[in-house]
Amino acid sequence: MGLEPVRWENGRLRILDQRHLPEREEWIEAATWEQVAEAIREMAVRGAPLIGVAAAYGLALARRSGADEQAARRGLAETRPTAANLSKALARVARADDPLAEAEALHEEERRACEAIGRHGASLVPEDAVVLTICSTGSLAAPGIGTALGVIRTAHREGKLKEAVLLETRPRLQGLRLNAWELLRDGVPFRVIPDGAAAWWMDRMGADLVITGADRIAANGDTANKIGTYALALAANEYGVTFAVAAPTSTIDRMTPTGDEIPIEERPPEEVTRVRGVAVAPEGCPVWNPAFDVTPAPFINRIVTEGGVHSPPYDFAKSLSPTWP
Amino acid sequence: MGLEPVRWENGRLRILDQRHLPEREEWIEAATWEQVAEAIREMAVRGAPLIGVAAAYGLALARRSGADEQAARRGLAETRPTAANLSKALARVARADDPLAEAEALHEEERRACEAIGRHGASLVPEDAVVLTICSTGSLAAPGIGTALGVIRTAHREGKLKEAVLLETRPRLQGLRLNAWELLRDGVPFRVIPDGAAAWWMDRMGADLVITGADRIAANGDTANKIGTYALALAANEYGVTFAVAAPTSTIDRMTPTGDEIPIEERPPEEVTRVRGVAVAPEGCPVWNPAFDVTPAPFINRIVTEGGVHSPPYDFAKSLSPTWP
Repeated sequence: MGLEPVRWENGRLRILDQRHLPEREEWIEAATWEQVAEAIREMAVRGAPLIGVAAAYGLALARRSGADEQAARRGLAETRPTAANLSKALARVARADDPLAEAEALHEEERRACEAIGRHGASLVPEDAVVLTICSTGSLAAPGIGTALGVIRTAHREGKLKEAVLLETRPRLQGLRLNAWELLRDGVPFRVIPDGAAAWWMDRMGADLVITGADRIAANGDTANKIGTYALALAANEYGVTFAVAAPTSTIDRMTPTGDEIPIEERPPEEVTRVRGVAVAPEGCPVWNPAFDVTPAPFINRIVTEGGVHSPPYDFAKSLSPTWP
Repeated sequence: MGLEPVRWENGRLRILDQRHLPEREEWIEAATWEQVAEAIREMAVRGAPLIGVAAAYGLALARRSGADEQAARRGLAETRPTAANLSKALARVARADDPLAEAEALHEEERRACEAIGRHGASLVPEDAVVLTICSTGSLAAPGIGTALGVIRTAHREGKLKEAVLLETRPRLQGLRLNAWELLRDGVPFRVIPDGAAAWWMDRMGADLVITGADRIAANGDTANKIGTYALALAANEYGVTFAVAAPTSTIDRMTPTGDEIPIEERPPEEVTRVRGVAVAPEGCPVWNPAFDVTPAPFINRIVTEGGVHSPPYDFAKSLSPTWP
């Protein structure tokens, strides 16, 4: 797609600062693992697969600069507690003789994984399909074409997509800001709706598929993803619309038995009370701002990985890939 | 509550301009029905019962100034197509010999209706209750204490409320801006959550009651209310939480058999793509922005009016009140 928001160049990690999109393209030049950690924590780079890749390069930076590698690994892992990709990518790079080569290999693997996810996922898309999705799951969230948005792109390329429907995804509006930006660039037909309008869209406009990304998939298929995903699954369930999750194997955490054991990050209240720096709430307004929710496996009709389309009952307790333990 | 956002003073209608809340208090001085219509259309005043009251005064202004009364009635009715209160209030005032006296009587009636709704609705609130609600349903939406927020206020006064949970209510953020502002003034404990977090709140934090306002209740109980209400009802249904609607009889439209016949207003895309004047979407981003959805009667466990608590099956085809035909 020509959009590479994480790039290794001249011994530094260039990170497209997504906080300023779609207004302007600003890049962070990270020369230390701490700078990478800050970019992840502050969500300059986000999306579970992409922060896995960024953290991998961050650990490579630590090795090159002779920093305390254990501290770097811990510091990078602690930036975002929910995404499985982060700790798994760090574990791979920590074991490697050449951490930079390993980070680059991992980056390329994830790019190919997303291509495969797009192909497999598109098989779930019927002709003339209306497909709903939430958050940002394209090239700004995962290498290459992305996960759920990669499926939508592939379905569009195959001529099967009537329209994508993007939930705006409060509080940070990744759907409205980032997914919309990517689809406008690609000329894929879409509309954005407020998160609360998804059930009503299904009632009045109809939907053929809901597909989302994931931040962590437990061994039993329970899936942590952007807050609002679970409500979207409830609506899909009410209307008998297939609800699918698209994620690379790196997002599957076979050591976490169920969603109950997935730690859910709470983000600062200012994400809700301020929008692009502008106050939208009365002073002192208390807020609950979990970044993710967990959709129980019984609501998930399909899980699409680079390995193919998985159907329930899910059992990911065994390793799925030689590269992802 | 000391907050009277619609006031008849010196032959003019003073309207608190809610578009600027909570930042500042600005008042519109309407001397013509056209100014009242504009205030309603642009949502300077909103909330189905309150726009009914404002429109009633608007028609009184038309009579006083010798304007074409049929045109005024039509013009005021067309500002917001979904709220039942608008056309019903206009019908009452149009029939009256003294339209101003009728508007004032209607205003006072609605104030008392909200007091009664608060009392009846509080009977649905158990001890130490967590109560979820959406949109703005207090004094900024209905005369006096409001509808759903009036129930929450009354439950708090009776010592039964542990916490109110306010959905922020995109796109216009009436929950975050207006309901939060009212509850901060009153010292009622609450938190605001993104709309997409309601189902997850029920899962992790628990809820005892969901109560919302209404813009139009059909004869069979199907209820049009702020977009996101239906998704909230689906979540309540999933968790076995009582879902109740609080509205004065003026909101019940016994001539509309079911929700399928309720016209749903679509609002401009800028409500979604701009927040308080700041662009939050890429240029040219297409949007679907229905202002309301319809929650089917089977999801509504109780409907609270000034007459009491109604249980399913609902049948409002007969007149409920001598003053509201």
